[in-house]
Amino acid sequence: MRFFSDNTATACPEILAAIEQANHGRARAYGDDEWTQRLDGVLSEHFGTPVRAFAVATGTAANSLALATLSPPYGAIFAHQEAHIAVDECGAPGFFSGGAQLVLLAGEHGRLDATTVSAALAAHPRSVHNVQPAALSLTQATEFGTAYRPNDVAQLADLAHRHGVKVHMDGARFANALVFLGCEPADVTWKAGVDVLSFGATKNGALTAEAVVFFDHSLVRDFELRRKRAGHLLSKSRYVAAQLLAYVESGIWKRNAERTNRLAARIGAAAGEALLHPVEANEIFLRLGVARRAALRTAGFDFYDWGPEAAGDARCVVSWDQPEQDVQALCEALARG
Amino acid sequence: MRFFSDNTATACPEILAAIEQANHGRARAYGDDEWTQRLDGVLSEHFGTPVRAFAVATGTAANSLALATLSPPYGAIFAHQEAHIAVDECGAPGFFSGGAQLVLLAGEHGRLDATTVSAALAAHPRSVHNVQPAALSLTQATEFGTAYRPNDVAQLADLAHRHGVKVHMDGARFANALVFLGCEPADVTWKAGVDVLSFGATKNGALTAEAVVFFDHSLVRDFELRRKRAGHLLSKSRYVAAQLLAYVESGIWKRNAERTNRLAARIGAAAGEALLHPVEANEIFLRLGVARRAALRTAGFDFYDWGPEAAGDARCVVSWDQPEQDVQALCEALARG
Amino acid sequence: MRFFSDNTATACPEILAAIEQANHGRARAYGDDEWTQRLDGVLSEHFGTPVRAFAVATGTAANSLALATLSPPYGAIFAHQEAHIAVDECGAPGFFSGGAQLVLLAGEHGRLDATTVSAALAAHPRSVHNVQPAALSLTQATEFGTAYRPNDVAQLADLAHRHGVKVHMDGARFANALVFLGCEPADVTWKAGVDVLSFGATKNGALTAEAVVFFDHSLVRDFELRRKRAGHLLSKSRYVAAQLLAYVESGIWKRNAERTNRLAARIGAAAGEALLHPVEANEIFLRLGVARRAALRTAGFDFYDWGPEAAGDARCVVSWDQPEQDVQALCEALARG
Amino acid sequence: MRFFSDNTATACPEILAAIEQANHGRARAYGDDEWTQRLDGVLSEHFGTPVRAFAVATGTAANSLALATLSPPYGAIFAHQEAHIAVDECGAPGFFSGGAQLVLLAGEHGRLDATTVSAALAAHPRSVHNVQPAALSLTQATEFGTAYRPNDVAQLADLAHRHGVKVHMDGARFANALVFLGCEPADVTWKAGVDVLSFGATKNGALTAEAVVFFDHSLVRDFELRRKRAGHLLSKSRYVAAQLLAYVESGIWKRNAERTNRLAARIGAAAGEALLHPVEANEIFLRLGVARRAALRTAGFDFYDWGPEAAGDARCVVSWDQPEQDVQALCEALARG
Repeated sequence: MRFFSDNTATACPEILAAIEQANHGRARAYGDDEWTQRLDGVLSEHFGTPVRAFAVATGTAANSLALATLSPPYGAIFAHQEAHIAVDECGAPGFFSGGAQLVLLAGEHGRLDATTVSAALAAHPRSVHNVQPAALSLTQATEFGTAYRPNDVAQLADLAHRHGVKVHMDGARFANALVFLGCEPADVTWKAGVDVLSFGATKNGALTAEAVVFFDHSLVRDFELRRKRAGHLLSKSRYVAAQLLAYVESGIWKRNAERTNRLAARIGAAAGEALLHPVEANEIFLRLGVARRAALRTAGFDFYDWGPEAAGDARCVVSWDQPEQDVQALCEALARG
Repeated sequence: MRFFSDNTATACPEILAAIEQANHGRARAYGDDEWTQRLDGVLSEHFGTPVRAFAVATGTAANSLALATLSPPYGAIFAHQEAHIAVDECGAPGFFSGGAQLVLLAGEHGRLDATTVSAALAAHPRSVHNVQPAALSLTQATEFGTAYRPNDVAQLADLAHRHGVKVHMDGARFANALVFLGCEPADVTWKAGVDVLSFGATKNGALTAEAVVFFDHSLVRDFELRRKRAGHLLSKSRYVAAQLLAYVESGIWKRNAERTNRLAARIGAAAGEALLHPVEANEIFLRLGVARRAALRTAGFDFYDWGPEAAGDARCVVSWDQPEQDVQALCEALARG
Repeated sequence: MRFFSDNTATACPEILAAIEQANHGRARAYGDDEWTQRLDGVLSEHFGTPVRAFAVATGTAANSLALATLSPPYGAIFAHQEAHIAVDECGAPGFFSGGAQLVLLAGEHGRLDATTVSAALAAHPRSVHNVQPAALSLTQATEFGTAYRPNDVAQLADLAHRHGVKVHMDGARFANALVFLGCEPADVTWKAGVDVLSFGATKNGALTAEAVVFFDHSLVRDFELRRKRAGHLLSKSRYVAAQLLAYVESGIWKRNAERTNRLAARIGAAAGEALLHPVEANEIFLRLGVARRAALRTAGFDFYDWGPEAAGDARCVVSWDQPEQDVQALCEALARG
Repeated sequence: MRFFSDNTATACPEILAAIEQANHGRARAYGDDEWTQRLDGVLSEHFGTPVRAFAVATGTAANSLALATLSPPYGAIFAHQEAHIAVDECGAPGFFSGGAQLVLLAGEHGRLDATTVSAALAAHPRSVHNVQPAALSLTQATEFGTAYRPNDVAQLADLAHRHGVKVHMDGARFANALVFLGCEPADVTWKAGVDVLSFGATKNGALTAEAVVFFDHSLVRDFELRRKRAGHLLSKSRYVAAQLLAYVESGIWKRNAERTNRLAARIGAAAGEALLHPVEANEIFLRLGVARRAALRTAGFDFYDWGPEAAGDARCVVSWDQPEQDVQALCEALARG
């Protein structure tokens, strides 16, 4: 029973169907096809404002290309110390930006707060001896499966903007956060001050498709050149665009996230005292201790050993195609203590 | 009737079928799945020697990641002045390598020759004032749709190696070259001295799948880290790996290339005096003059306007799914002069 | 009375004399002159082992060029969170290395300890998702004016080496540390496991001269190309080399450091409870509080306001040409409380 | 008798005197000293327009930092194929810019002409597949010791600007060009459309001092951060600034260039048919043939073997401190044929 990652899941039937439907006739290459050309419109509709949206194949590409449009090489990118961009992407932001420096900050349950960000900004004045504040990257849902409320985002984005700092949102699990918050996509993005969003679909049912969504259109030209240069402009772009269109238009983004959130919440409820963070998306973090964790694994559950070995923490992730009986089994195992 | 690019084509039925077959059950992410794990074996079989093979989504990624493993930032990468890496990738090799310098060389019909390469190597001695010879990149088939013979490759690779220079082959249309040459994959790669190959599948029937194939295994560790860092390690890697496996194992690489080569040869024969380069793959380069070129376009043929406007040159590319009647129509139009 | 920085000082008479003596006759450019050619020998003598030594004009260049030879672009560079490379060089290590990631660690009095470094190494396993441990950078004397003992360095370097990590020492104030420790240059460098040293002279009496000293000669070729490429190979190299030769051969490195250490110790003794860190070099860190700090400044003392404003901390640095009466005055002011 | 390079020369007495005069008292570090603060004023006076001027230690740094402010990583930098930035700086522009691509162009006597530049611009349209035209770099005096006339520069700069391309001038031997042209510094720089100038002093009598002079002030902030990050902001900046001030204010720039130009012209006149390029600065290029070249060397003349070995070409450079009898001897040797 795999709770290791939502990356281990298959692709939705709707996604595969969309690929097949796109597989007819000639189409202009490199994004000049009709599917890719529809992305802006469909995502503008989704976000309730005119956006520019670009397909890429991975979340690392989405994040780093977005950040490279926000930060000069001598920029500082502020992020949570557990952020994917900091600990899981082999230094990708440094590569794409030409060496921008990550400034990593602590924050409860994976969320940054205004006090910490404010202090970090203050520690990087305009002197040429410092890297210059350029981007604030927020993860929604966070690495600990929690969600920033619209007000949280607005407060942080406002703070950032007052310092000339642009705001990026890593939305690898954006749908899960939205479903939890019960708000509109606009509410935690452009209305709250987000300039560019990594709009994830792969973890939530796509085959391999992410979008970079620009609310600040001035960044687009730079982005497009960087994307091509990084090998992330797909020649047969229609097949990724078709996934994103199906993901948004068919409503599977919501259906899948509702299911995984619901199942994750069940696991969270069963975990009781072991729970490390509130369950607000499809991830559950547990402090099991080494022995109990080993026992769970022996019982057939696969998950991610989180943090320092001694604590015996575990991360469980519910995937869109997770069998309900897996969840039931895990709940029972956790309830047994 | 689109002869603009083989990137405008659909994906083969066999490719889509392979994706669907891979779309069952959980699979480990980031390449630890069973499809990706089979790549080395299947491509080792294909090349008749143990190789390490890695899936990526684009040819630009394949080329630039390969070159970045071959060249330090202060390296010189020798390539034909019309090479895709030089003129169509927005400077990707410079980005991936940290600023290596392309040294662009002339060569008839898109092929480099030993005299030119030798002079270029001599012009870059060991002095710290020069960029240092690091990689020779050969395109097979070339940008002008011609193929290097095994002896050509061997001579150039030998020259390169004697100068401590590694050899990269951009095989975006590798299958077409192989079919034309009637040789084994080994004959124009490792047996001839190639160290790393960009093994293209997308232009020849895949959905979006390229492989980087290492004959020199010492480069692999560096490559793997660079790939992740560049956002080119796919989380759901199975879907790209499955395409590559189907492409090689089902023989569609050969079937498709045989068809496109055959049709291209027909167009070449019909073109007569207008032909600029021998037709040895699926591309045809024509000197039509501005007026005749415009007339062809008016007649419903789409193609790439090549080179300076005044010459009126055109590039036509035959795709794996090109209707035979398109080709027939083009042949007739060209025969009419 | 300026205690702001040792960078505000003049150059020693011996240094100027050396420049003048070098200013006769033609000399080969770019380091092939007799002065530069003597550097290896003189510094090998100084360190008691064969070294390769290279002149550069700034400490930032020395540090970052050294680190770039130690770390691939996907490397992790471990350093103290107050290290000059982390907070005072505008992200230079990221630039020179092609985006390596600084991993910043806490440590009392500016020193890293083995427990912290060990945990940081453990947090960066071989997985491609992580930046890869590449370099450990130790500052000697530290940013807080303390010195690593030979055993400290040896323990940290041994730990690093066991993880395949090379050791860099930022010796911007190397002479001050040596004088405090009363040991040989070898004892805290190659004998303790240091692979490459930024050998500072500018702060201690040179006009503008630093050296990068390689104990690990395998790094030299890469370094030389990176140095040229970064614009840090001086055409009239003799004038920097002559400074370094004079600095070492005349013994001014020791004389100046002895003087500044001695004067700093006097200030430290006068500071009493206000002292934040042991005074082991030419820097004194004081917790004065905002009011007392302002009063000192009004009294004519210039220094660096250190850390968050509210604490009222100050850094005072004694320069080689600091008038003794400045020190006397500062001691008296501090003693008055 | 060394005619190898003007980098083999000493520094002028006036330069050393300026360094000594600056060597008194404390001065703020990193360019906040009174010498550095005067640079803008003195160079604004020199150029007859408000400029921002920054000291760096090498010409490679000046060129590459300037170009990095002009070109994004995906930019194209157009330059003569013999330009120092292309063949003598180990790929520095690629390093500083994050991988911008040099587009190298031919041009008689080292000068680019509008036809060639125009064609190169046309070959790089706005498509994301191309690197984007960003900077045109002109060398004044050129690598072949010739000078662009004010009209030449104006025509090229106008062409560049119409394509959104900024203009850099590599003035490593700027004084020599000015003296030859008999014009004001303004006439071949900002009045002709130059945006940023590498203002060389080292080859013409300074110890080690170059300036980057911005006529387009919007580039300055970016430059200052890049300079620090590249290790080219000197802590004891006064010593480089003092050289530049003396170089401009004392008139040695003109005196030295007049002398070297005059002596070079004598050699050019003596060379007769052997002369490859007009002598318009302090360099003389000779086609001697292998035998005669060897004979000259045997006779005690040192110079640079230029170009392919078989041609037997030589470059001779006259330095500010070249003994007149060296020149006399060379003239006689050349006149003997």
